[in-house]
Amino acid sequence: MCSVIGLFNVPEAAKYAYFGLFSLQHRGQEAAGIASSDGEKIYITKGRGLVTQVFDETKLTKLIGSSAVGHTRYSTAGEDSVLDAQPIFARYDLGQIAVVHNGNLTNAKQVRRELIKEGAIFQTFMDTENLIHLIARSHKEHLYDRIIEALQQIEGAYSLILLSRKKMFAVRDPYGFRPLSMAKLGDGWVVASETCAFDLIGAEYVRDIRPGELVVFEEGKEPRSIQVFEPTPHKCIFEYIYFARPDSNIFGKNVYKLRKAMGRELAKEYPVEADMVVPVPDSGVASAIGYSEESGIPFELGIIRNHYVGRTFIEPTQAIRDLKVKMKLNPIKNVIKGKRLVVIDDSIVRGTTSKKIVNILKDFGAKEVHMRISAPPTTGPCYYGVDTPTKEELISSRYSVEETRKYIGADTLAYLSIDGLLRSVGNDLSYCMACFDGNYPVPLKE
Amino acid sequence: MCSVIGLFNVPEAAKYAYFGLFSLQHRGQEAAGIASSDGEKIYITKGRGLVTQVFDETKLTKLIGSSAVGHTRYSTAGEDSVLDAQPIFARYDLGQIAVVHNGNLTNAKQVRRELIKEGAIFQTFMDTENLIHLIARSHKEHLYDRIIEALQQIEGAYSLILLSRKKMFAVRDPYGFRPLSMAKLGDGWVVASETCAFDLIGAEYVRDIRPGELVVFEEGKEPRSIQVFEPTPHKCIFEYIYFARPDSNIFGKNVYKLRKAMGRELAKEYPVEADMVVPVPDSGVASAIGYSEESGIPFELGIIRNHYVGRTFIEPTQAIRDLKVKMKLNPIKNVIKGKRLVVIDDSIVRGTTSKKIVNILKDFGAKEVHMRISAPPTTGPCYYGVDTPTKEELISSRYSVEETRKYIGADTLAYLSIDGLLRSVGNDLSYCMACFDGNYPVPLKE
Amino acid sequence: MCSVIGLFNVPEAAKYAYFGLFSLQHRGQEAAGIASSDGEKIYITKGRGLVTQVFDETKLTKLIGSSAVGHTRYSTAGEDSVLDAQPIFARYDLGQIAVVHNGNLTNAKQVRRELIKEGAIFQTFMDTENLIHLIARSHKEHLYDRIIEALQQIEGAYSLILLSRKKMFAVRDPYGFRPLSMAKLGDGWVVASETCAFDLIGAEYVRDIRPGELVVFEEGKEPRSIQVFEPTPHKCIFEYIYFARPDSNIFGKNVYKLRKAMGRELAKEYPVEADMVVPVPDSGVASAIGYSEESGIPFELGIIRNHYVGRTFIEPTQAIRDLKVKMKLNPIKNVIKGKRLVVIDDSIVRGTTSKKIVNILKDFGAKEVHMRISAPPTTGPCYYGVDTPTKEELISSRYSVEETRKYIGADTLAYLSIDGLLRSVGNDLSYCMACFDGNYPVPLKE
Amino acid sequence: MCSVIGLFNVPEAAKYAYFGLFSLQHRGQEAAGIASSDGEKIYITKGRGLVTQVFDETKLTKLIGSSAVGHTRYSTAGEDSVLDAQPIFARYDLGQIAVVHNGNLTNAKQVRRELIKEGAIFQTFMDTENLIHLIARSHKEHLYDRIIEALQQIEGAYSLILLSRKKMFAVRDPYGFRPLSMAKLGDGWVVASETCAFDLIGAEYVRDIRPGELVVFEEGKEPRSIQVFEPTPHKCIFEYIYFARPDSNIFGKNVYKLRKAMGRELAKEYPVEADMVVPVPDSGVASAIGYSEESGIPFELGIIRNHYVGRTFIEPTQAIRDLKVKMKLNPIKNVIKGKRLVVIDDSIVRGTTSKKIVNILKDFGAKEVHMRISAPPTTGPCYYGVDTPTKEELISSRYSVEETRKYIGADTLAYLSIDGLLRSVGNDLSYCMACFDGNYPVPLKE
Repeated sequence: MCSVIGLFNVPEAAKYAYFGLFSLQHRGQEAAGIASSDGEKIYITKGRGLVTQVFDETKLTKLIGSSAVGHTRYSTAGEDSVLDAQPIFARYDLGQIAVVHNGNLTNAKQVRRELIKEGAIFQTFMDTENLIHLIARSHKEHLYDRIIEALQQIEGAYSLILLSRKKMFAVRDPYGFRPLSMAKLGDGWVVASETCAFDLIGAEYVRDIRPGELVVFEEGKEPRSIQVFEPTPHKCIFEYIYFARPDSNIFGKNVYKLRKAMGRELAKEYPVEADMVVPVPDSGVASAIGYSEESGIPFELGIIRNHYVGRTFIEPTQAIRDLKVKMKLNPIKNVIKGKRLVVIDDSIVRGTTSKKIVNILKDFGAKEVHMRISAPPTTGPCYYGVDTPTKEELISSRYSVEETRKYIGADTLAYLSIDGLLRSVGNDLSYCMACFDGNYPVPLKE
Repeated sequence: MCSVIGLFNVPEAAKYAYFGLFSLQHRGQEAAGIASSDGEKIYITKGRGLVTQVFDETKLTKLIGSSAVGHTRYSTAGEDSVLDAQPIFARYDLGQIAVVHNGNLTNAKQVRRELIKEGAIFQTFMDTENLIHLIARSHKEHLYDRIIEALQQIEGAYSLILLSRKKMFAVRDPYGFRPLSMAKLGDGWVVASETCAFDLIGAEYVRDIRPGELVVFEEGKEPRSIQVFEPTPHKCIFEYIYFARPDSNIFGKNVYKLRKAMGRELAKEYPVEADMVVPVPDSGVASAIGYSEESGIPFELGIIRNHYVGRTFIEPTQAIRDLKVKMKLNPIKNVIKGKRLVVIDDSIVRGTTSKKIVNILKDFGAKEVHMRISAPPTTGPCYYGVDTPTKEELISSRYSVEETRKYIGADTLAYLSIDGLLRSVGNDLSYCMACFDGNYPVPLKE
Repeated sequence: MCSVIGLFNVPEAAKYAYFGLFSLQHRGQEAAGIASSDGEKIYITKGRGLVTQVFDETKLTKLIGSSAVGHTRYSTAGEDSVLDAQPIFARYDLGQIAVVHNGNLTNAKQVRRELIKEGAIFQTFMDTENLIHLIARSHKEHLYDRIIEALQQIEGAYSLILLSRKKMFAVRDPYGFRPLSMAKLGDGWVVASETCAFDLIGAEYVRDIRPGELVVFEEGKEPRSIQVFEPTPHKCIFEYIYFARPDSNIFGKNVYKLRKAMGRELAKEYPVEADMVVPVPDSGVASAIGYSEESGIPFELGIIRNHYVGRTFIEPTQAIRDLKVKMKLNPIKNVIKGKRLVVIDDSIVRGTTSKKIVNILKDFGAKEVHMRISAPPTTGPCYYGVDTPTKEELISSRYSVEETRKYIGADTLAYLSIDGLLRSVGNDLSYCMACFDGNYPVPLKE
Repeated sequence: MCSVIGLFNVPEAAKYAYFGLFSLQHRGQEAAGIASSDGEKIYITKGRGLVTQVFDETKLTKLIGSSAVGHTRYSTAGEDSVLDAQPIFARYDLGQIAVVHNGNLTNAKQVRRELIKEGAIFQTFMDTENLIHLIARSHKEHLYDRIIEALQQIEGAYSLILLSRKKMFAVRDPYGFRPLSMAKLGDGWVVASETCAFDLIGAEYVRDIRPGELVVFEEGKEPRSIQVFEPTPHKCIFEYIYFARPDSNIFGKNVYKLRKAMGRELAKEYPVEADMVVPVPDSGVASAIGYSEESGIPFELGIIRNHYVGRTFIEPTQAIRDLKVKMKLNPIKNVIKGKRLVVIDDSIVRGTTSKKIVNILKDFGAKEVHMRISAPPTTGPCYYGVDTPTKEELISSRYSVEETRKYIGADTLAYLSIDGLLRSVGNDLSYCMACFDGNYPVPLKE
């Protein structure tokens, strides 16, 4: 998971990119970067850490020009994150280009192999580098045509923004896996992964970039739209469940409202007699409110989240039990003691965290813990840009619901059904639910 | 506002202090420090920044011994924070001592002046230094008697923990302004500002240190209690309203539950016809749940808080409107649009932030904004350890409720009455409410 | 100017690379990097700053394997130094490669343009990237042949070390502009820019890589030598004059000894009646000793150099006169007062520093200042890897010696003649002296 | 060893203090600090590291006012260097004071014990804190009288500068152990440990503060001198041998010239047939020039010093032989090979470094190594401000010259005699040579 932002024809574009990225920080805390253009040259700064750590006034001031693209990167293990931060910048035969990418190409290895066979060199581990090579190797005269040619060779999930010295291009894959929205800011334009970025910088939402659509931004002209591919929408439903900020509209719908709807459906499908509905914060809050409203069981913020995070490897010799979970989450003993709880979470991945949460709740005196998950069991990994564990590590790929319940130690456990999930999104069938139902719209090559 | 923690007879005490301070981080983000003792010598490390920034494995490992005291410090302007971080450590005629302090002495200047007259030198701006001087100058033979003698010379608010090479002393002022609780951890003891620290490290709450009580911890003995002063409880009610973490028990009562009770009283006193109850997160959440339950108006988490804070001074030339508030709080447009909102906050200090919140809500389409404050108007500053602005800066000291309403632009505005607040805490009259009612139990000298 | 080092078949090669680079630090303080191979994979770390700042134990420990290449980079203005640090690492059709480069390609722009025309993308500003592209695009089967093919397409100055997963290749351009020596360390081999690196790590010098030679290091075999190009030696004479450490042997000759010889020749050519010979430290010391020995005028270390450097932009409003020079160099007033000085420096570039030195010497009471430069006037820029100013900025390209003397305020000024310089190096004509005589052995394309 | 500087009536005094400390950096690299006064208030910043690391433009700009004192601190093991950095600042009954100190009090523990008995608390390990306590506890009305009273209670070595809000006081102990000089800068005054500080900032040397003298700087008045103690000069001769910069005048004499004189005496006392004189840089250079001039044996800079220091704990498993010495010093193989060397160093402390130097020289082919030390054998520790090892660790306290020679592996070894040393300084008997002759002018209490 990552976030992208682009600004065109906005004075001091890099500063707006900075604030936009700040509001998209939840989509990636590992690295951040911004490239800007003043029409003559592209400027770039990227680095490890949070947006506010990578940039300061001095660095932003050097990113001159009225167009910019930015990126925040999600943590991925093992690689040198400075080299693998985005934007990727390159000089090529049409000049200079900077690209930001949210998603994952399913034929990346194949394309890379072919490019390498033709003599291309790869300096990063990022799929995005493929795209720039394809553009650079195209024999078309115009960048616009080259981008289209390149897109025809890649498969998978991509919400991309490309910045040349004088233009900006925003494009979404034909499935529309990842979100990408468009807004007006003064006389210029903004494109971003989530609409919460528009709210912060005061841009006005216009519409989503459509699946398979390429939008070209050029000075003195209105944005031009080309439907490069026939759209076959398979929008990532997990954006609603976990990734996106509740104040964002994703694929045209408000995340908070949908989460509440999922909570409501969950209450209908799996009611239980209990004293209170308690969310695992922050992602379970909206669903819990929905569950509470539907069931009539009071909502209580019975688990407190500590936001002063920071990786810690310090531990006393006599290890503190469940330390890592406790550093983030602490139940309110006085509230839950002797009570029957409906605990709402968005997913169970490996099961280890859920097990610890149930454990702590019981330790703190909860009489019953009824775990309710506002999504179906995650049975398969995502190939489209979400950093999920392998199939083997996903508890629901190996265990039945009952086995999972036993493992985590809950009194009851229930997941929202796929039908229930569909009802929450208005029975709209245009979503990808591969991680739940195994129907992968685009197969992974290798 | 600050936090203190002390551990006695706990192997690797400093590491437990570290985790305890981590859970008390909300009580001070400016500086942190820990002093430990191995019975022979006191070790100390302190510095600017968050607990996880000041300490690492290497530094903690050097803080050897089975007793420790720790401190987090709230930001105060203008002074050199490295010198003014706690614990304060000193060598004196009985050996070595380290002290941590939460509170504010009302006769600090007077005592300091007298000490200075007698030839004392002061190297910090902290009240705590007074105490060490008084202890050092006492002619009593035992530290225990000297502490008592020193306490008799200071006035105001203090929850103190003193560490000598072989003992630990915890003491609360006769008014009990600031909280201080005691717990058991293995064979040892923990003393901390809030009980949430006990939860993280797995200590078991025993009782609060009483107003005017001194508890002495000594190896091989049970903690010994001395009631140094006749208790005249004036516990800070603002701990419930704003400071403490909802999962803590303060003065024996759960913060979350009391906040809900305040929300309920507020709903009874100032009902309003509306579509939803929306808290200003995070401190307004519990009261909003209470207000919602009492009024029957649905609770909605209609404003999202961004926790990736960080001071920013970067702004485009064409300043983004209400930038600072927006970086922290973003309303969900889709949820509030066209709706009549009851917005719950814990206090209005200068009025500027509330004005901006109302402004953004209206911008985002809220039809009506009914501001409800879960506490009475703040009309006076605190002299007992809370960093409030001067009386002149407090909007409620100059403006009536109606004038304040106009200033912030809300449709209606109401504060919980003092009676309502009292009802929320079970009509217990042992609280200090000086910031609301002007009854200062201890006058400020100068 | 930069430095390179390579180690093959040396356990913990990266750690030896680290110490080697430490001793080559004088050839570049802007950035440093090391890539290692364990036979299966290439590992890399690079960053801004001194070798000791970029690396720590943890980072070095991750660079596993028994072969490694390293680089220190000289400051060049304007570009993002993280991206432009070396080694350059790439994946390509034969696997993985890391390259370090000292020098400057004269047809870099041309080659780059052609590569770009063929669809290559460039992510850095470094010439080295050209080479990797050429290797990757070659249709030869073996890396060895590809390197040769690539070398045939580049022109200019290069001392290169290439690391693949299983082999290492060291090569010097046919002119041999930049030095590159070879040594034995245990069962393995070391290649480095200067022999002082061998001294530190205890490697035994074997011989120099020859101009136009490629040496291949492969496990279980003796290093294999291929004379790729007919050697037409034009070794950079400026290495002796300024760059190299006096304890290094460059092109088979000891730098310190040659500098002394230059000083001697200078004394023969431009004797003067004076009281003492004073070097501008550190680079002028050896020549000054030579001048003193030849002339019989006593050598005095009359100017002290402060090595606690650090860029400073702080200055009082009432600026300190000649601050920047004074922070680095301070004459000993008591020694020079009333004395006639022969001041020995290695070159006059823009003239501004020399002017300030003369100024300070006179301020401190020097009776006469006879400036003697241990090299001919620098009249042209270097295209072969030295970061010289443009021709216009070089004072000797615009001013006669007499005009320069007037400008810097010296009583007399003399430069070592080209003949004198040649005599110092034993009348060996195999040196490039383009910066002095304008005879550029390889023209700059564009 | 440390350095102090003070400025009075100099606009932007703190900035001049910064540059002064930069030139005094060789007297202490562990910590640095500056306190300034604008006549109303004292401002202070101090921290760990080099002067250029502790201060930046922002921090210096906050140190307002036209008087300032500064300090650089030499590394001492084991204590928290932030707390123990200077200046020490305190509020006391006459207001505010900041003190910097170079030296060591011989009755510090005794005075501290008495102060502690009277109720004083000590927050640092620095002797300087004693002085402030004594001043604060004095019953005299004026600071001036109190300083005198305090001085009468302390013993040992001190060159002190005290800054109050409106005045500055500079004082040297009656023995004049450590240097302290005075200069004019514009309408104001500068006091500093070494005259090289004056050179950098353009101040004009006036005279040394005399042993036992107190100089008072007050606005609108000429500096006022009081001879507090009868002077009994015992100036530290080691300042000439090792500490001071060669361009400084110490106790009125130029360091470089004296070092040359020592080298000359050494040549007279201990001639040897050899091919070259080689200094251990940097401190041995001047003596080596002297030895060379006297003996007629050519001077060669045969050992090169690497100034890119930095503590390193990284080492390959197969440790590099003599790594730490080699990282700093590298002989020029080509120069010394087959030669008979006279190696000049300033002292042999534990003998381990000398042993390694001889070892490396022999490894590199030196035929003979004749070690000559430009000072007598160091047989005792210094109690007056020099961080020497204990008597047991000093090789010359346990070994004869011949035993030492064997240990270090030199062919011959000789030390300058005490008489020779005295001749070098013009047979001036006013020096302390306790570390050589055991005549401690002030005994260490405890």
